[in-house]
Amino acid sequence: MIGYPNKKKIQPPVSDPAISKARRGMSLEDDLNKTNSYYLDVDRAVIFKKPTPIQVVEVSYPARNKAKITEAYYRQASTTDYNGVYRGLPIDFEAKETVNKTSFSLAKLHKHQLVHLVNVYRHGAIAFLLIRFSSLDETYLIMVESLIRFLKNHDRQSIPYDWIKNEGIFIPYSLTPPVDYLTALDKILTEGVKRNEEKK
Amino acid sequence: MIGYPNKKKIQPPVSDPAISKARRGMSLEDDLNKTNSYYLDVDRAVIFKKPTPIQVVEVSYPARNKAKITEAYYRQASTTDYNGVYRGLPIDFEAKETVNKTSFSLAKLHKHQLVHLVNVYRHGAIAFLLIRFSSLDETYLIMVESLIRFLKNHDRQSIPYDWIKNEGIFIPYSLTPPVDYLTALDKILTEGVKRNEEKK
Repeated sequence: MIGYPNKKKIQPPVSDPAISKARRGMSLEDDLNKTNSYYLDVDRAVIFKKPTPIQVVEVSYPARNKAKITEAYYRQASTTDYNGVYRGLPIDFEAKETVNKTSFSLAKLHKHQLVHLVNVYRHGAIAFLLIRFSSLDETYLIMVESLIRFLKNHDRQSIPYDWIKNEGIFIPYSLTPPVDYLTALDKILTEGVKRNEEKK
Repeated sequence: MIGYPNKKKIQPPVSDPAISKARRGMSLEDDLNKTNSYYLDVDRAVIFKKPTPIQVVEVSYPARNKAKITEAYYRQASTTDYNGVYRGLPIDFEAKETVNKTSFSLAKLHKHQLVHLVNVYRHGAIAFLLIRFSSLDETYLIMVESLIRFLKNHDRQSIPYDWIKNEGIFIPYSLTPPVDYLTALDKILTEGVKRNEEKK
């Protein structure tokens, strides 16, 4: 992602300048790729980003066993970007970044992504949204249950930062892994497992 | 998929000629797309095929908001093709087709796919393989547990048809949905839920 020309000016001071410098320019997606690959390495969870859906129109074969795609288009995904398995439970989430400091615009969350999150939640998945306020360098996890409650009670085009700060779970930055969302999730998951047992 | 010139000759007679005719040329992937979309419509499960991973090298912008990919290559997937949520459990599987009538060649199952299936199984997912013997018009579901047992006890490059017939669950063809693998899975899943409860 290309930074805004005034990005450095709006970058807030953070406690550790070394970490701040190292992180500059790292997108949430980069951080999540590292995090998921760390979880896989230490055998904590199996969570992957889905490939971007692409509609292939034309393929040429410059060599016998080599296919070169010469015309293709990005398609809109029908699901969220991330899913997998953790502690026997299905995990499903979408990750979004915003440079806005006071709210998260709901236009960034596509309708089919919200529908998918609600669907997997109803079927028993741990479904959530990761929102990074990149100007503030803060990342929050918002369970789909909270999100549904917000949407029911507010007729707004955006979620205020203060609501996210109160309702979401703050994910502190660490080096390995950069976005340790599973640790943030552990308390909720333990409750979720109990809830599932009661349902049965 | 383009049929072999002698495909009609090797097509076996099936009980219902109308169904046989309708199905000719339908790949397992087509059937699974219909099946998963049926499961979603009737709200039985949320299972999707992952997009094919493609490495984009060059993109042109013929119009301001239109991206045209002009050079890209197929990449090897690091996971299986299908996953989702059913009855609160993570579901993960790979689907393979063979024209061979006597065995399924293990070369068709890539190492990283097998590793992924074993990984998600260890983390609590319902993991399996769907194998269609297209010349016989028979589809089987093989749980990863059975597959692991086979690989441990046999030093073979292929799984014999007879073993699959005995160890796998036969999935009869139906119109809606074409490959009703969840019904085939239900008995095993009920046992799986019990097993998970015991673990807790």
